[in-house]
Amino acid sequence: MQIPGPYLLFLGNTPHRLDAKTASGILDWRSELCTGQCRLDADTVDLGLPDMSPAAAAAAGARTLVIGVATFGGAIEEAWIDTLLAAIRAGLNIASGMHARLGDHPAIAAAARETGVCLFDVRHADRRFDVASGRKRSGRRLLTVGVDCAVGKKYAALAIHHALATRGIAADFRATGQTGILIAGGGVAIDAVVSDFAAGAAEALSPDNAPEHWDVIEGQGSLFHPAYAGVSLALLHGSQPDALVLCHDPRRAHIDGYPDYPLPTLTACIAANVQAARLTNPAARCIAIALNTRGMNQSQRDSIFASARKETGVIAFDPIATGANAVVDTLLAGQFRPKHTRPLTEGELT
Amino acid sequence: MQIPGPYLLFLGNTPHRLDAKTASGILDWRSELCTGQCRLDADTVDLGLPDMSPAAAAAAGARTLVIGVATFGGAIEEAWIDTLLAAIRAGLNIASGMHARLGDHPAIAAAARETGVCLFDVRHADRRFDVASGRKRSGRRLLTVGVDCAVGKKYAALAIHHALATRGIAADFRATGQTGILIAGGGVAIDAVVSDFAAGAAEALSPDNAPEHWDVIEGQGSLFHPAYAGVSLALLHGSQPDALVLCHDPRRAHIDGYPDYPLPTLTACIAANVQAARLTNPAARCIAIALNTRGMNQSQRDSIFASARKETGVIAFDPIATGANAVVDTLLAGQFRPKHTRPLTEGELT
Repeated sequence: MQIPGPYLLFLGNTPHRLDAKTASGILDWRSELCTGQCRLDADTVDLGLPDMSPAAAAAAGARTLVIGVATFGGAIEEAWIDTLLAAIRAGLNIASGMHARLGDHPAIAAAARETGVCLFDVRHADRRFDVASGRKRSGRRLLTVGVDCAVGKKYAALAIHHALATRGIAADFRATGQTGILIAGGGVAIDAVVSDFAAGAAEALSPDNAPEHWDVIEGQGSLFHPAYAGVSLALLHGSQPDALVLCHDPRRAHIDGYPDYPLPTLTACIAANVQAARLTNPAARCIAIALNTRGMNQSQRDSIFASARKETGVIAFDPIATGANAVVDTLLAGQFRPKHTRPLTEGELT
Repeated sequence: MQIPGPYLLFLGNTPHRLDAKTASGILDWRSELCTGQCRLDADTVDLGLPDMSPAAAAAAGARTLVIGVATFGGAIEEAWIDTLLAAIRAGLNIASGMHARLGDHPAIAAAARETGVCLFDVRHADRRFDVASGRKRSGRRLLTVGVDCAVGKKYAALAIHHALATRGIAADFRATGQTGILIAGGGVAIDAVVSDFAAGAAEALSPDNAPEHWDVIEGQGSLFHPAYAGVSLALLHGSQPDALVLCHDPRRAHIDGYPDYPLPTLTACIAANVQAARLTNPAARCIAIALNTRGMNQSQRDSIFASARKETGVIAFDPIATGANAVVDTLLAGQFRPKHTRPLTEGELT
């Protein structure tokens, strides 16, 4: 699956910025891919991009309309259909992260057939996966894990990948959710894989690589989430991470949407993730805490970083506010040198 | 999904009894449902049932041909097709636990349409599931868990259900795999559910029930399995078990098919399962060890039971050799009385 850019970001008629997190994510990380935004009315959230009709966006060079809003239950809304059909008639491909498939909508399917544009349902893998083999793969891997859903696992992975790339270190961002896939242009929506094959899909997502290469893998869910922990565990086992980064939003009071489920402590969350990760990679360890400190001033931020560090013994950072340079320093500090499987040569010994 | 019995057990041409475990399981637990067996040649495994052609089985009252053998990758073999078509023409429904769907085979689909028989793909749910809610349900639940796949989780659950039913205690066996579903006539193949909904499917499988009613739920996989642990964790969280029974085959040397993966100790396996189970049911605890002691004499069996009991502090039994009466004694010993949520009446206090 390779989605042609640039994109027209479609925002429907949602007034809530949080519902537009797919569009915001693409704009935050791949602004060079964003030709404009398409909003259905004046109350719709404004990302600050030029407003464009599908025809105007196509004329300006856009190749794909991306549905940038989430809906309850992942449905494609009837209010969107006229605009989606206009986009198809203007020659734009359509990309969607909804559970519902674009091709299952008769008018959309018919229009796409007529004009020959592509429909990308990024939530649904376009291939089958094997059962996980458990075989240790070459290369190095970092996985972001969370105390809960929606605490910054994707942003932490993107920031770490960005910091690695800025220093010229070979690395790939590996997307496991729909927004990540639209940012990266590829990946696997792990939560949409049949559960027998979820760990196998995670293995396929980060194949064997050069010994010094880093795959930075976007985490999903939480081992402490009553609905999604199985997804998190399959991703953890299949990813075989050398390094874990635990993500947290300090304002979160309980598992989001599950008021009866308290959050685990950072320490308990690290312990559970490291213990589970060591099944497939005995060298796994947690190297940093990613905290969402939006709205805090410098002194509040310093204080919350210090407190996380005191509790866990590892560094804390904010993917947006501070960037992930400190994480890269840790990765380069020598603890992650590949284990030599042959005798060292004289040159290597000196 | 309600599969009409009695069954004709189809064994294909497999010479290996282990490949016929679906047929053996049905025969062991629901012999009254088995009209006969259908074997393609003289080398095929013999379960001791009368050999019958599909037409003869239909004449003898059979309603459904059950594919009782497993194949590598879950494919429907070409060598079977003539017999399956003959069964359909004789008016038998077909039930299959393969990954491949019966209805995807053009000749089978056409014949079934013509004669009006039903095709049951028990591995594929005939409904959609919600995301798990984490809401505590009424009634009591027991889940069998394992150190590995294929260590007796289904047999342990069936034996416990049988022992409860024999004592007149309200209980249901809840099947989570294809053989269990064919034995019970219903259930959910949890490993075939999309991973986002696996815990939700487990919640749907054992709905609210009377306070004293037991759901005895068939476990899947192992938290220590590099491919299937995510399935096991989703089932554990969605089942909300009050009681866990850990299943083990003492002859197993490592995770089956994964020689690099050692088995966990019974103690480590109990600890990991109880810790994870307490996320959705803080009262969860392990009450027994089910051991497969096939081929052992009484003294070997006593010794291995004693050793398991010494290591774990809970009773050990063999679902086949000893039955599960001791487990029912433990369940009835008072530790599982429902918590009263209203003041006790005078009658209850005395």
